[in-house]
Parts: sequence; structure tokens; C-alpha cells
Amino acid sequence: MCFEIHSKLLEDCLQLGQLQLCKVLLMNDSRFPWIILVPRIADLCDFHELPHENRQDLFNEIETVSRTLERLFDVDKFNVAALGNQVSQLHIHIIARSKSDCAWPGPVWSTGKTIPYSKEMQDKLVEQLRQSIEDLTY
Amino acid sequence: MCFEIHSKLLEDCLQLGQLQLCKVLLMNDSRFPWIILVPRIADLCDFHELPHENRQDLFNEIETVSRTLERLFDVDKFNVAALGNQVSQLHIHIIARSKSDCAWPGPVWSTGKTIPYSKEMQDKLVEQLRQSIEDLTY
Repeated sequence: MCFEIHSKLLEDCLQLGQLQLCKVLLMNDSRFPWIILVPRIADLCDFHELPHENRQDLFNEIETVSRTLERLFDVDKFNVAALGNQVSQLHIHIIARSKSDCAWPGPVWSTGKTIPYSKEMQDKLVEQLRQSIEDLTY
Repeated sequence: MCFEIHSKLLEDCLQLGQLQLCKVLLMNDSRFPWIILVPRIADLCDFHELPHENRQDLFNEIETVSRTLERLFDVDKFNVAALGNQVSQLHIHIIARSKSDCAWPGPVWSTGKTIPYSKEMQDKLVEQLRQSIEDLTY
């Protein structure tokens, strides 16, 4: 089967572009700076199913995204997670957490209601993130 | 500073041993088969801070633990996560989720109350896990 991003991810996120291995999505929830990486390989579910030859790339891309978020936001801690209880396609959350965010110190999932970005904020942030990821891409 | 496992992790977990890179802990919560890997390097907090030369090892060890849990439990999905909102020392959760577990499809963190293993169950499971990890270790 060909690689396609799951429709639920497309529904919840804005598309930022792609890196060597992954599609890069921005979760459309203004409460948390939250990027999702989706390895562009069909039929992956669990983290350890990623082929050996792609593992270094995934790590590099998690690093690129983390450093991008660090440039643009005050980050106290990164949450990096492959859960997939709702969407089984392998995707990795990278969330810049702040001690003043509304879910701290709990996890962001299942916490309150999503607050989508305004159109203006969305355009600005997507542009900033695209530029910064491009600058940092190995 | 020398590497030491954070006291909160030692309090919440049982020690299973160590692999090439990580200490291996079993979360003492019988609701979920839940292993934690702690890279044996001092002063690491975020996932992307892991040195390049240790990244392949971490991936291998996540795979070893996942395959171990797969041997012993019915697993519908793995949750792999480095959160660290409560304990900032880098540690990676590997949780074998089942569609019939008490938190499904939500995350396990902040869900209800921990139910520690009985002494008998603890001894049996620790022995099984140690044996299985040893068999699978690369």
C-alpha cells in the first residue's frame, strides 16, 4: 500500500511540509506548541517497527523539530511520544511544554478542549515554523 | 555528575536490570504492562539531548522491550513516550496497551489510581521479564 497520512491527522493538523523521512504537521491547538512527525512509510504502527535504516533520520528530525520549537517558544520540557491509541498509524508527537500551560504537569492528551489558532495566528506561525525548520534541516 | 536514577523512579518501579545503554525498570502498577528505560548518562533531560552515538542503542532497547512485552502479554498498541513533566531525568515509557485496559483509548498517565503488584505476582513477572529480555538482547 502507498503511504498516506491518516484522515484524522489531516483533520486535526495544519501541514508544514516534509523532511527526509517524515511529514511535518502542526496540531491546530493554540494551547500548546505541538508538532507531529509522520514517517512516510506505509503500514507502520508501532515505534519499534520503523526500519533500522530510518532510525537515525527519525532521531535527527525529532531534534530539528525540538530545536525549532525552542527558538520560537519558552520551553520547560519536551514531551516526545508515539501513542496511537486513536490513530494507529505511527506518528510522533513533539510538544513544547511550559510550566504555565493549562495541562502542566499532566499530559496534554485528554485535557480540556482544543482551541484552534485564529486564521492570522495560523498563517504567521506556519510561516515561522516552515522557515525555522528549513534553516535547521540537516 | 555521576549517573543516578531519580529517587521518584526508584520509588514507583521495580528494577529489572540493565542493557547496553539503559537501566530497565518495571512500573509497579498491575493495571498496565509498563517498562521504563533510563539511559545511563548523567544530566540528560530531553529526548533530543541523547548523544548521536547512543541513539541506535536506545532504539534497539525500545525494540527489545517491546518484543519482550509482546511475548508475555496481549498487546493492541505500544505507547512509547519521553514526557518528564514530573521527573525531568530522561526516561522512556514503553507501555503495552490493550483495548480492554482501564484507560483505553486515553493515555495511562493521570488515569485513576496505581494498583501495585502482589508480592507473588511481582516476583513471577520480574523473573519472566528478566529472562525474556536476556533472551532477546542483541
